[in-house]
Amino acid sequence: MNPKRYLPILQWLPGYGRATLGSDLLAAVIVTVMLIPQSLAYAMLAGLPPEVGLYASIAPLVIYAVFGTSRTLAVGPVAVVSLMTAAAVGQVAPQGTPEYLGAALVLALMSGLVLTLMGVARLGFLANFLSHPVISGFITATGLLIAASQLGHVLGVAAKGHNLLDWLNSLAVGLGDLHLPTLTVGFSVLVFLYAARRWLKPGLERAGMPPRPAETLTKAAPIIAVAVTTLASWWLGLNAKGVAVVGTVPAGLPPLTLPAFDSGLWSQLWVAALLISIIGFVESVSVGQTLAAKRRQRIDPDQELIGLGTSNIAASFTGGMPVTGGFARSVVNFDAGAQTPAAGAFTALGIAAAALLLTPLIAHLPIATLAATIIVAVLSLVDVAAIRRNWEYSRCDAMAMLVTIGLTLGVGVETGILAGVGLSLALHLYYTSRPHSAVVGRVPGTEHFRNVERHQVETDAELAILRVDESLYFANSRYLEDTVMALAARQPGLRHIVLTCQAVNVIDASALESLEVINARLRDAEVRLHLAEVKGPVMDRLQHTRFCRELTGQVYLSTFDAWRSLRGEDAVPGLSCGSVGPVSAGQPKPLINDDTRRS
Amino acid sequence: MNPKRYLPILQWLPGYGRATLGSDLLAAVIVTVMLIPQSLAYAMLAGLPPEVGLYASIAPLVIYAVFGTSRTLAVGPVAVVSLMTAAAVGQVAPQGTPEYLGAALVLALMSGLVLTLMGVARLGFLANFLSHPVISGFITATGLLIAASQLGHVLGVAAKGHNLLDWLNSLAVGLGDLHLPTLTVGFSVLVFLYAARRWLKPGLERAGMPPRPAETLTKAAPIIAVAVTTLASWWLGLNAKGVAVVGTVPAGLPPLTLPAFDSGLWSQLWVAALLISIIGFVESVSVGQTLAAKRRQRIDPDQELIGLGTSNIAASFTGGMPVTGGFARSVVNFDAGAQTPAAGAFTALGIAAAALLLTPLIAHLPIATLAATIIVAVLSLVDVAAIRRNWEYSRCDAMAMLVTIGLTLGVGVETGILAGVGLSLALHLYYTSRPHSAVVGRVPGTEHFRNVERHQVETDAELAILRVDESLYFANSRYLEDTVMALAARQPGLRHIVLTCQAVNVIDASALESLEVINARLRDAEVRLHLAEVKGPVMDRLQHTRFCRELTGQVYLSTFDAWRSLRGEDAVPGLSCGSVGPVSAGQPKPLINDDTRRS
Repeated sequence: MNPKRYLPILQWLPGYGRATLGSDLLAAVIVTVMLIPQSLAYAMLAGLPPEVGLYASIAPLVIYAVFGTSRTLAVGPVAVVSLMTAAAVGQVAPQGTPEYLGAALVLALMSGLVLTLMGVARLGFLANFLSHPVISGFITATGLLIAASQLGHVLGVAAKGHNLLDWLNSLAVGLGDLHLPTLTVGFSVLVFLYAARRWLKPGLERAGMPPRPAETLTKAAPIIAVAVTTLASWWLGLNAKGVAVVGTVPAGLPPLTLPAFDSGLWSQLWVAALLISIIGFVESVSVGQTLAAKRRQRIDPDQELIGLGTSNIAASFTGGMPVTGGFARSVVNFDAGAQTPAAGAFTALGIAAAALLLTPLIAHLPIATLAATIIVAVLSLVDVAAIRRNWEYSRCDAMAMLVTIGLTLGVGVETGILAGVGLSLALHLYYTSRPHSAVVGRVPGTEHFRNVERHQVETDAELAILRVDESLYFANSRYLEDTVMALAARQPGLRHIVLTCQAVNVIDASALESLEVINARLRDAEVRLHLAEVKGPVMDRLQHTRFCRELTGQVYLSTFDAWRSLRGEDAVPGLSCGSVGPVSAGQPKPLINDDTRRS
Repeated sequence: MNPKRYLPILQWLPGYGRATLGSDLLAAVIVTVMLIPQSLAYAMLAGLPPEVGLYASIAPLVIYAVFGTSRTLAVGPVAVVSLMTAAAVGQVAPQGTPEYLGAALVLALMSGLVLTLMGVARLGFLANFLSHPVISGFITATGLLIAASQLGHVLGVAAKGHNLLDWLNSLAVGLGDLHLPTLTVGFSVLVFLYAARRWLKPGLERAGMPPRPAETLTKAAPIIAVAVTTLASWWLGLNAKGVAVVGTVPAGLPPLTLPAFDSGLWSQLWVAALLISIIGFVESVSVGQTLAAKRRQRIDPDQELIGLGTSNIAASFTGGMPVTGGFARSVVNFDAGAQTPAAGAFTALGIAAAALLLTPLIAHLPIATLAATIIVAVLSLVDVAAIRRNWEYSRCDAMAMLVTIGLTLGVGVETGILAGVGLSLALHLYYTSRPHSAVVGRVPGTEHFRNVERHQVETDAELAILRVDESLYFANSRYLEDTVMALAARQPGLRHIVLTCQAVNVIDASALESLEVINARLRDAEVRLHLAEVKGPVMDRLQHTRFCRELTGQVYLSTFDAWRSLRGEDAVPGLSCGSVGPVSAGQPKPLINDDTRRS
């Protein structure tokens, strides 16, 4: 066991120097400023007290610095995971109760265990089964859901719901109770943040600032909104006028917490924990890979699972909530020049200082401000154009995306993502169960064979050549039987069928039985079955099978060999299955034609 | 809508003649004789009164004659489906109660509806997702389970269980109560049936009988056992000596029954109904296809679903139980010369006559006789050698098979089959998520390119050619990213990477995004990405994508073109994505090289 694999900190800490320290410290300051309002806001989105967001941005960052492989990923509470946390925990306890807080800790612990175990078992590839359109649809839908859920706070209206319709409905019902002072605060912040996103960066660049600092400064807009509205709230006594504020937040470092080991609770939360883990991992790893590639670095997805898993476990023991690598903050960290995960550890120090010293100031922060920062952040994730783009490129992908969006909005986040993954897998299996194949003929005067339906090619009434374009496995083996038997039925004078297998990487046991069936049925119909261009590894496995012993025809090295030999043009040494054996199974030797060994 | 598609009877009834009538009648007589003991035995296996088996062999056969497409399939109760019925119904009601009987009717109705709806929706392809090793493992395991469940009847010992261990355990416990008269009957029948199977057919053939009648006569052995032991039981008064007998069976035609529409019951049974439907369909369709192929006929799997579905619905309204096409009886029907499904309708008449007239005689039939016929029938389905055969050919398939067997025996039939299907799909997806690819080089002096690891080929330090051997989709797109980036990292002087795509039938939206990512990352590394041998339909879809617009390199018609052009040997017109457009999107024209259109 290589300690550097499981402890990536050993790769960078020994060479840590003063220059790197400077860069990392600067990045940490910038990210800290950005993280304070985000942490408060995402805790609120998850239905948790604001300090939980701060706690979740301390220990997990330190732990990720030890176990994570990305040099610049910034972990902490993120929007989608917070929404999923609220949805999961809301089903086992009412918001505001100690049980709710306890369930969030359990969820963080379970998610941490799931991620760590997946990492140890090297199951990072599981994330590959989330197709891009499903992820993109899910992010768009959760963005809309989150925005809808926060709109009530901006309008000063009590709204509740589990899906988009619920939210919009309860918002409509509550519109009569519109609270003007809250609306004023919320709407001002919305306009300010939108304007900053839209015009601040171009403005700063026109004023001569280089693009990256301009971008970073723009991303600090939320902290300005927080500071200004908190001051205004305190000065004008907005709370007394009915504007909801954050209220007293206990000052201090994160408490040590012990998540409940309650089997009933665990069994209620495990599906949510699994989904939160996978979604969080996918989000984190795609950010991490994008940033790593820009600096010619690599991240190890399996070790990333361990990094994120241990971070979540740390969160669960320090009063936190489920965390993962966030997109916006990681980009800021990268752009601000972070060189190593030490930047994350320094950020943790900054947040800890904030939790110790700044919390009394936060009491007057209007909730509408936090809601507005969430809305602006998540609406930037909504990508409706992707629906049209996918529709134009691939109906299947677009369908999976639309189902994900529809069910996430209409039923819930867990149903949405599960249905999306299920549908994309089902569509994939459905299409591979009808393998692409083509009857081919010879391009006159050459050794090349092409699809008879697309090209003017030579064919032969006694000989049909079928090119199979996919590996043969259980789901498509019956379709192969149908295709071959239909071919035999269509051409009454047929005496030979050649299966050309250059695209066949695997023939599984079901497909092997289907080949036996095809061989037997063709034998009854007095048609001989031949193979051509079988790859080396496939041929090796076919050697000692009954199919090979009973094959009525021969195995040809190339399609052209089969063509010449079966038309009697040339006595090409067509090999029986057995006789290919020693050649193919032995050491590579100078074959006449090495087509059987192209793997 | 073509009535002949939905009413296959219209295809053969109009031309029905006297010669066909004779053949069908003869086959019907033979099958009737065989079906009587089978129907009684499988009803007992399902935990139902014996007459239910007879009822299930009347109406369903008539209905299948109208809606089924196989000329020779014989439907009725079969072993595996009966066992699954017992397992499902046993969970909602105790055996012997009217509720148990009622639940079996509901199960038949639900299974009939599932099958019919699948047929109308043309979902017959779903059966393809049961791989052969999983089916074979499932049949072997259920065979063992059934044999174990019947052993108690042969030994005269009360045994109960849900899995193999339970059965063997309760048999061992009960061995002290061994009932010698029962054992004598049961063991004699076992020996007789085994001997008939082993020696009767060769003996008859040696005596000059042709193989087919000899085979058919051999299959009539159970009726001889039933007749002899019933007579002996009546004569010797075995029931009074403690030998369990069938007892009074009501004489009469099947009753009209109305399955209960109880939503609670339906929701408890739906998983079982679905599994019974699919397993029954797979068994039936494979028998049907094998027999049809022998006479150059075809069956239509989607219409078969409707045929089997309506048969089950008929069973549920006539006091029956779930049915499907049976292997042994269909082969007997075929060998006895059945020409059309009318043979099945005549068989139904025969069974109806038996239900009316023969039931008083059945009262003395020992249950041990039925149990012995079941044991001999199902043990012939057990194929332990298949495990070794699959292990040698493909570890993956063998693993799916072993898991299916283990869980079917150890936990239950539903868990076993679901786990087998799930595992085989998961293994398939896992392997396709690592697509086969190879770096290729030029075979000196030719236009051919081969794997650099298997062949002595020419390569170039500035140019790497990667042959991708599978369609690109979401599950393998990230692996492609890794493969290409690793290739770029390995070869520092690299300036060009060519992806050769002759085996790529589809590039889905996720893979397209991965190609964009690869292109962008390689651009940052100052490596240009090119494509070669892209198939026509794939190129058509790539035309108007961002990837195509941003591709740093070109699309070559052949790998050799790319090789010559990128090494500066020859000014081959490398085409940019856009410029391939009009050629590929338009009508087929005489291309210089038609490789981009080989589909």
